[in-house]
Amino acid sequence: MQDVELISPQLAILDEEPYYHAVGDEVPLFESAWRNRLPVLLKGPTGCGKTRFVEYMAWKLKRPLVTVACHDDLTAADLVGRYLIVGGQTVWMDGPLAAAVRAGAICYLDEVVEARKDTMVVIHPLADSRRVLPIEKRGELVHAPAGFMLVISYNPGYQSVLKELKQSTRQRFVAFEFDYPDAELEAAIVSRETGIGADVAAKLVKFAAMTRNLKGSGLDEGASTRLLVHAGKLIVDGVPPVAACRAAIAQAVTDEPEMLAAVHEMSSSIF
Amino acid sequence: MQDVELISPQLAILDEEPYYHAVGDEVPLFESAWRNRLPVLLKGPTGCGKTRFVEYMAWKLKRPLVTVACHDDLTAADLVGRYLIVGGQTVWMDGPLAAAVRAGAICYLDEVVEARKDTMVVIHPLADSRRVLPIEKRGELVHAPAGFMLVISYNPGYQSVLKELKQSTRQRFVAFEFDYPDAELEAAIVSRETGIGADVAAKLVKFAAMTRNLKGSGLDEGASTRLLVHAGKLIVDGVPPVAACRAAIAQAVTDEPEMLAAVHEMSSSIF
Amino acid sequence: MQDVELISPQLAILDEEPYYHAVGDEVPLFESAWRNRLPVLLKGPTGCGKTRFVEYMAWKLKRPLVTVACHDDLTAADLVGRYLIVGGQTVWMDGPLAAAVRAGAICYLDEVVEARKDTMVVIHPLADSRRVLPIEKRGELVHAPAGFMLVISYNPGYQSVLKELKQSTRQRFVAFEFDYPDAELEAAIVSRETGIGADVAAKLVKFAAMTRNLKGSGLDEGASTRLLVHAGKLIVDGVPPVAACRAAIAQAVTDEPEMLAAVHEMSSSIF
Amino acid sequence: MQDVELISPQLAILDEEPYYHAVGDEVPLFESAWRNRLPVLLKGPTGCGKTRFVEYMAWKLKRPLVTVACHDDLTAADLVGRYLIVGGQTVWMDGPLAAAVRAGAICYLDEVVEARKDTMVVIHPLADSRRVLPIEKRGELVHAPAGFMLVISYNPGYQSVLKELKQSTRQRFVAFEFDYPDAELEAAIVSRETGIGADVAAKLVKFAAMTRNLKGSGLDEGASTRLLVHAGKLIVDGVPPVAACRAAIAQAVTDEPEMLAAVHEMSSSIF
Amino acid sequence: MQDVELISPQLAILDEEPYYHAVGDEVPLFESAWRNRLPVLLKGPTGCGKTRFVEYMAWKLKRPLVTVACHDDLTAADLVGRYLIVGGQTVWMDGPLAAAVRAGAICYLDEVVEARKDTMVVIHPLADSRRVLPIEKRGELVHAPAGFMLVISYNPGYQSVLKELKQSTRQRFVAFEFDYPDAELEAAIVSRETGIGADVAAKLVKFAAMTRNLKGSGLDEGASTRLLVHAGKLIVDGVPPVAACRAAIAQAVTDEPEMLAAVHEMSSSIF
Amino acid sequence: MQDVELISPQLAILDEEPYYHAVGDEVPLFESAWRNRLPVLLKGPTGCGKTRFVEYMAWKLKRPLVTVACHDDLTAADLVGRYLIVGGQTVWMDGPLAAAVRAGAICYLDEVVEARKDTMVVIHPLADSRRVLPIEKRGELVHAPAGFMLVISYNPGYQSVLKELKQSTRQRFVAFEFDYPDAELEAAIVSRETGIGADVAAKLVKFAAMTRNLKGSGLDEGASTRLLVHAGKLIVDGVPPVAACRAAIAQAVTDEPEMLAAVHEMSSSIF
Repeated sequence: MQDVELISPQLAILDEEPYYHAVGDEVPLFESAWRNRLPVLLKGPTGCGKTRFVEYMAWKLKRPLVTVACHDDLTAADLVGRYLIVGGQTVWMDGPLAAAVRAGAICYLDEVVEARKDTMVVIHPLADSRRVLPIEKRGELVHAPAGFMLVISYNPGYQSVLKELKQSTRQRFVAFEFDYPDAELEAAIVSRETGIGADVAAKLVKFAAMTRNLKGSGLDEGASTRLLVHAGKLIVDGVPPVAACRAAIAQAVTDEPEMLAAVHEMSSSIF
Repeated sequence: MQDVELISPQLAILDEEPYYHAVGDEVPLFESAWRNRLPVLLKGPTGCGKTRFVEYMAWKLKRPLVTVACHDDLTAADLVGRYLIVGGQTVWMDGPLAAAVRAGAICYLDEVVEARKDTMVVIHPLADSRRVLPIEKRGELVHAPAGFMLVISYNPGYQSVLKELKQSTRQRFVAFEFDYPDAELEAAIVSRETGIGADVAAKLVKFAAMTRNLKGSGLDEGASTRLLVHAGKLIVDGVPPVAACRAAIAQAVTDEPEMLAAVHEMSSSIF
Repeated sequence: MQDVELISPQLAILDEEPYYHAVGDEVPLFESAWRNRLPVLLKGPTGCGKTRFVEYMAWKLKRPLVTVACHDDLTAADLVGRYLIVGGQTVWMDGPLAAAVRAGAICYLDEVVEARKDTMVVIHPLADSRRVLPIEKRGELVHAPAGFMLVISYNPGYQSVLKELKQSTRQRFVAFEFDYPDAELEAAIVSRETGIGADVAAKLVKFAAMTRNLKGSGLDEGASTRLLVHAGKLIVDGVPPVAACRAAIAQAVTDEPEMLAAVHEMSSSIF
Repeated sequence: MQDVELISPQLAILDEEPYYHAVGDEVPLFESAWRNRLPVLLKGPTGCGKTRFVEYMAWKLKRPLVTVACHDDLTAADLVGRYLIVGGQTVWMDGPLAAAVRAGAICYLDEVVEARKDTMVVIHPLADSRRVLPIEKRGELVHAPAGFMLVISYNPGYQSVLKELKQSTRQRFVAFEFDYPDAELEAAIVSRETGIGADVAAKLVKFAAMTRNLKGSGLDEGASTRLLVHAGKLIVDGVPPVAACRAAIAQAVTDEPEMLAAVHEMSSSIF
Repeated sequence: MQDVELISPQLAILDEEPYYHAVGDEVPLFESAWRNRLPVLLKGPTGCGKTRFVEYMAWKLKRPLVTVACHDDLTAADLVGRYLIVGGQTVWMDGPLAAAVRAGAICYLDEVVEARKDTMVVIHPLADSRRVLPIEKRGELVHAPAGFMLVISYNPGYQSVLKELKQSTRQRFVAFEFDYPDAELEAAIVSRETGIGADVAAKLVKFAAMTRNLKGSGLDEGASTRLLVHAGKLIVDGVPPVAACRAAIAQAVTDEPEMLAAVHEMSSSIF
Repeated sequence: MQDVELISPQLAILDEEPYYHAVGDEVPLFESAWRNRLPVLLKGPTGCGKTRFVEYMAWKLKRPLVTVACHDDLTAADLVGRYLIVGGQTVWMDGPLAAAVRAGAICYLDEVVEARKDTMVVIHPLADSRRVLPIEKRGELVHAPAGFMLVISYNPGYQSVLKELKQSTRQRFVAFEFDYPDAELEAAIVSRETGIGADVAAKLVKFAAMTRNLKGSGLDEGASTRLLVHAGKLIVDGVPPVAACRAAIAQAVTDEPEMLAAVHEMSSSIF
């Protein structure tokens, strides 16, 4: 058999420290999991900083980072790789997971429960003591180097029966729960990311807390830190605070007319 | 590996100002979102001018515009691109989203909730601070230039449980709500687009308002501004107003015999 | 990139006037819609003459006609076109919709609600003021010439919740409702198409009216004009009228034994 | 574009008269439909002779016969044809329907409701006055010659809501209902096809009638004429009649233990 | 058109007599069906010897045997054959059914109700007096030689509504019902296949009978003859009888803790 | 036909003894099954050592081991093999099952009920006295050498109606049930795998037992031995025991806030 060329991209290490402010013991725990070659599972609501945390840890551990946003149609082949015909030749192109394993990178599967079940199973041999990735189509068994780490995340608030992590999957991971930062820290983050004054940032955080209290009583989810940053940017750019809160926060969290009115009123009472 | 040729179309900027009449603060808000590199979500009923508004903003910001009408079978590959075999060579053809990112264009995904879930996820990294489009099949990470902007739209009135925007998607966008213009403005628009007299235009707008009041009590949706333009064109062309209203408006909004009769009667009472 | 050959068939104009007898103002309304470049939606039961009407209008307006019978598996690609490998070369073959747009033809999508949702969406940009067909796989935007017209049809009596036209689709069309011609006209049509005597034709029309009264009380649909033509042809060929009515009409509209007996009895009472 | 070779098989006319015994006026009705170029729909239970009737008519009208057994996965492409790569060249291979149209054959689609919906629609233009088969992939419109005839069949007893013929399909056909032949004729048929004596044949027919009376009260369907032929053959070959009836008839119509016992008892009481 | 090479394997006749002990008149009935060119349907529970019986008959009739285990994803193409590209040439590779027809073999479709509906239909023309296999993709009609025989099987106990044999399929077959052999014969079979003593074999058969009595009251199915053979082999190899019964029989028939305990107790009471 | 090259990987035997501590008679039973060429089915909860046991037996029997993690999209072709185009040539690449059969390896299908139904059926001829693997696409019948053994596993606690093993599958296997080791043995295993002291290991096992008692009353599954090993590793690395138990055990087994609190409290009461 003629050799099939293998295409596997060179992955680079982030060269700038991402801004991340720890909210608990997540940094040393992550480092310990990495030293013990254990995979990590991050739980938490949207926009609370999971992705940023993984970027920060990749930078701190000097590992390249490969991020995959999971979805309904993501197959095992999308992660592992596939054969392509290029110029009449068959070449093998590593998928992001295979590339991450070869490079000893951190591979971050975001919103992993959205992926099809076969994706879950393909990570099993990587997520136990074997630490191997079988590439069945190549008849190859890739052993993960020491630096490789698998990180997955999901939002427990959205898990449906159809899309839950099986015990045989989750019992392979060390798991951390994330939540929004406390008020003071969140105001500092919003201020730093937008250049807005401390007082306005505090008001935005207060507004966010009000929406988070509505979770489960009309809202699926409260305003995330990310939405506060959006509102802050619009305000710095000259948009009146109430209009900025309406567009960046209220309209972003709900379509329901009465709930929209209630959330508008909250922002008006603050600004 | 032999080089794979990359096919990415050159996108042009609209050279004529599209006719658009603002109904609120949507123009400065959109500009602020663009300056802050935030993606935008437009909500509103069919035919109220969302598409025209995006065309207008693209012209105003001097950005090329790429519009994609989303549907059930639209996959991530349709947006991002795919390999083709041309003359025995494999070439990569950018999809409309990848082409828009490379060109720093405005990419407008119309009725985005109709698309498959993987489409939603493929826009995530473009719709947060990373502003990147991963093209996994090429192992390429395209960084969006400053001019690029992502705009999506949907009609909240039609969202079903199966087709709603997840919080992890919607909490990435600055959101605006659109509605029909007020009566005076709408009559001016109909008049300008059809050449019909102000009095007939006013009557058409009055008729439309009557149908919009029936929304939820027999009609799924009232007559849009677009339908008034259709009726106006037929009238200018010599079709009797009542016949024009029946064909362009009543028959276009419902099939239900009793509702058709009621709507016919309304137009007869006006003309 | 090597040039991909484009295969787009030459479409011809009907050279013989199709037999069509107007039942209302549908001819001038259609002409006005065509002059105003508005798309048209035809509603009505099976076999009442919608297809013949479109053929007639195409002949009258001197436009080529492209007819597509829609079905569950009709995809956007079937309408727009696809790449084929021919003799080792990749060629692009226009689908019927793309061919119609390029030729300035009338494109008639029959029973459009049967098609998959993506078909609906692909016609959106053709069915508003843009009048363009984006061929995403070619990165091409085809502008419809003045002569092009889009016509769609469906039978409102059969629409299910799963297969209804979305408001965002239907509010792009000028709509006409069709029904069976009145008794005198229908008898004339049957007579002309079969050569049968006026008296027998009148009896067939009377029989049809009886079956149409059963619609909703045992029959899904009454006998169409087409079935009367079938029966007429068999009678002219020597088949006894009652046997012709049984085979061409009764057995064609129902399988239900009691309903069959009732319908048989009706024809026996007439002939 | 290089010429694509067209592969369309030469169809032969049956050279031996199939054995068929008419049970009503189905032969002259079929001939009249054929002379008038009308398509035919045959209804009736399994094994009552529909297929044999079509073979007989094809022989009588001196037309080649193409039979297609329809099923869940039969697509329009399976009927119409597809491109194949042969020796590096693309050739078009006509499907059985296209081949039948070109040859002016009788095309018999057996159990047509089993086919996918797109199959139904592909026959529409062949089953009205147009008598054309559009081959969209070739951009070809094949006009049916005078000899061509479309025949479809199904068993109304098995139609489910999901698998019924739409009115827009069935109202294109002249329809005949088939049933088992009367006792005397059926005994003659069994005798002729197996060489069994008239008395045993009569007993088998009597037994069949008993099972047919159980239809709807424990049996989905009674024993068909075909099963009597099977039993007859086994008996002629030396199998005891009761054993032959059990294997060829009782076990063939049901699995239900009590019903099996009842049917066994019937045959024991006769032989 | 260039010739497409046809790949059809040479099938061999079994050269050793398989061990089979008849339980009724199934051998002469099968021979009579074969002489009369009638297809056969075998019904019965798992592991009762249907496969072995077919092997035995193939050997007795000196016919090659082709066995296909049917499943959910078995398509008509899997049975009939498909085109492959080999060394740049298109070759046709017969599927097992086509190969069996050409070779005049016995083709045994095991658990036929598991297959997709199209598989059922593809065998229809082979299972009536036509005895032909249409290979639509080749435009070929293969006539079955005299020696060819179609045999299908299923387990009526497991048939669900979704997976039942249609009357139009089953009324083409001569049908036999299989059951476990009687106690004495079954003990002889177990003894012969494992070398175990007659007394232990008798105990195993007694144990099996107890589990078969539980069918429908806690067990889906009792222990098959095959499981007794498994237990016998382990015992001969030195495993204690109770342990052998637990692993080879009890754990093989159920997972339910209470039922497992009950079945364990049965075996303990015997050994 | 040109020869198609066959690619079948050389499989190696494990050269290091995997650590495994027997909990019952599973080792001699497995050896007896192997000597008698009977396939084996392992049942048990996640993380209790099934995979390690198979590795150990493969080492002990000096057989190569091929492990396949089954999933929803695993097809028969993934197991058996497929044709690839390499350098313009068609080559056949054995799947893991075919490779294992040729090499006389142990083939372990982990979580077999997750695979598609066709996978189940493809192993049937390997799992009875025939011991053959039909490779239909090659027209090849591979006979398993004496050393080959098929092992499958699943967790009965998770079987749903949709994903249960059919009797016709399970009645081909000798079956063992696995459970967690007893307390003393489990502490020894944790200690050996992590280097943690015996007292901490005993506390972890005590904690695990408490969570296992919650199975069915709030937890889907208790903590597996694997999770104890995770916690032990973090503790040895300096993470405080309560934090290690929270991340490695509590967060890994549940997302439910009250259950998390209860489990946290358990670990606090122990450490």
